[in-house]
Amino acid sequence: MSAPLDDAALDQLFRTARTYNGYTDQPVSTEQLHAIWDLMKMGPTSANMLPSRMVWCVSDEAKQKLAACCMEANAKKILAAPVSVVIGMDLEFHELLPELFPHTDARSWFTGDDKAEFRRISALRNSSLQGAYFILAARALGLDTGPMSGFDNAAVDKAFFADQPNVKSNFISTLGHGDPSTIFGRSPRPGFDRFNTIR
Amino acid sequence: MSAPLDDAALDQLFRTARTYNGYTDQPVSTEQLHAIWDLMKMGPTSANMLPSRMVWCVSDEAKQKLAACCMEANAKKILAAPVSVVIGMDLEFHELLPELFPHTDARSWFTGDDKAEFRRISALRNSSLQGAYFILAARALGLDTGPMSGFDNAAVDKAFFADQPNVKSNFISTLGHGDPSTIFGRSPRPGFDRFNTIR
Repeated sequence: MSAPLDDAALDQLFRTARTYNGYTDQPVSTEQLHAIWDLMKMGPTSANMLPSRMVWCVSDEAKQKLAACCMEANAKKILAAPVSVVIGMDLEFHELLPELFPHTDARSWFTGDDKAEFRRISALRNSSLQGAYFILAARALGLDTGPMSGFDNAAVDKAFFADQPNVKSNFISTLGHGDPSTIFGRSPRPGFDRFNTIR
Repeated sequence: MSAPLDDAALDQLFRTARTYNGYTDQPVSTEQLHAIWDLMKMGPTSANMLPSRMVWCVSDEAKQKLAACCMEANAKKILAAPVSVVIGMDLEFHELLPELFPHTDARSWFTGDDKAEFRRISALRNSSLQGAYFILAARALGLDTGPMSGFDNAAVDKAFFADQPNVKSNFISTLGHGDPSTIFGRSPRPGFDRFNTIR
């Protein structure tokens, strides 16, 4: 049985954490990218499907390729960030379920042309869960993120997944040590009664 | 600038945290449900759309209603858990954007019949992000979850959202203090090189 984390940890994960539009010059190491993955991969996905396919853009060339697929305001953030990340999703994730979920035949739940939409929804739901684990794993490790969905998905797919037609972009994010001067005022967060019901 | 959380916190959030199939008798209070919401609502969503609509089933009647929509193995877990939760999503979330994202006209990005699929994908992506924030907020507060997608979405929508035709179920979860005797062996979590690329 666990106790609640302390206030400083809850602040770092949720309460004072923010979406950043810009970052300090402090670099992000390859070891930190591995550390994020080693946390985010532990979060639950349906039948352990782990559909996310992550592309970490650290070179100027890769960031330029990604920025070219984005609205201008987002392109600038991507070029300036220490790392920019594509959270992709494998629509044929079920082919790996014999390995990832070995105790039952979960692959058969998703097999067949008539299951293409079910696979697409499952990949979107579960790679989004993994995208949230990415955001919170980065925060847990003292880093900051700037998730975005204002981009041309087809262009990103062509730029980064041309050799894997079963992989599509879900959303993208910047990553680094956030510069507090680049955040906007906090948007409203309604209280419990607004969007919750106890039955 | 933040430091990484300590190992005990990373364990509680990601590394030793597990999906539970059963719970101890220790109850979950209404205050704890509010505390989960007060953390999870702080996580980022696109244009602060906050599309999740949460139904917290605490009464036997509500749990029976939910269990009736599920596969037998899941129905048993739902009935036995202290709380069972429906993570729903509002497909008409854009109507609230003038309130939730007041500094620009984000509502217009989603308006019109030709944007119905864009709204559906946006609601699914962002309510899934919020579903992951729910899982990690619960863990951060010392609670455990058992997320599931093995249920009849249309039946859940009829049982819980009949009066809100714009709200649909995304996924469901149990919530409580996990009983370690009910967890399965950990499924494989591949290393970085398998599903990640550095460019």
